[in-house]
Amino acid sequence: MAVLNAAARQLIESGALAHLVTLDDDGSPQVSVVWMAVAEDGGELQAAHLDGRQRKLRNIRRDPRVTVSFESTEANAVGMKHFLVVHGEAYVTEGGAPGLLHELAQTYVGPGTTFPPMPDPPPGFVTHIRITRIGGAGPWQD
Amino acid sequence: MAVLNAAARQLIESGALAHLVTLDDDGSPQVSVVWMAVAEDGGELQAAHLDGRQRKLRNIRRDPRVTVSFESTEANAVGMKHFLVVHGEAYVTEGGAPGLLHELAQTYVGPGTTFPPMPDPPPGFVTHIRITRIGGAGPWQD
Repeated sequence: MAVLNAAARQLIESGALAHLVTLDDDGSPQVSVVWMAVAEDGGELQAAHLDGRQRKLRNIRRDPRVTVSFESTEANAVGMKHFLVVHGEAYVTEGGAPGLLHELAQTYVGPGTTFPPMPDPPPGFVTHIRITRIGGAGPWQD
Repeated sequence: MAVLNAAARQLIESGALAHLVTLDDDGSPQVSVVWMAVAEDGGELQAAHLDGRQRKLRNIRRDPRVTVSFESTEANAVGMKHFLVVHGEAYVTEGGAPGLLHELAQTYVGPGTTFPPMPDPPPGFVTHIRITRIGGAGPWQD
């Protein structure tokens, strides 16, 4: 179990996109870029999905190991951008996707966005990532 | 074998950062964010490393399967950003890192940058990624 520090939390909550890596059934890496929320006092990340048939959800149900990376807008002294890498164990729960997506859209699209952009969206699924290790390059270790 | 189309190539060559996923020895995903060049007429990606002891290089030598993802600045109609995912088989060659890093720094840091920022850098290593499949969300399939 690991917890995001203030700098890592601020990066994610500023609307940095999450590159979510899951493992295909042959063990090769699969990536999607998604919106991500910080939950459980910084010990968990959450993403929401309206469609439960997505490959990343099938992957997580088979192998819970995931890695999520985020680019920072800050750079080191020689101009290489900082980045945050979060390792975790994921699981998927049913329901709650429209509310979480709407909340995330206020940052990732802009204040006042109505999301999902449809009447009566399905309840969908939420991916929960319990953080096990934090890496990357940047001020992520206190 | 797959080849990047003009839109995918333009995204990478505009200085989009590459989230490079390799596989640790237990099969779990490892990510670093690196600079990436397009080579071999769009059929290969290349990254350069001064230090050959990096975990990602050890990983590639053991298991060549890699995935690289890039964020676009463009979004779809509902505000979700496009992203490019490149799957490939990687191998590492010795030498050539300072020249490639200098070239990439002109885009990733800025025109006129001297890189690596040291006298007499080591020859280093270049990772070559032969592209096998292209995915993501955006105008990457002609």
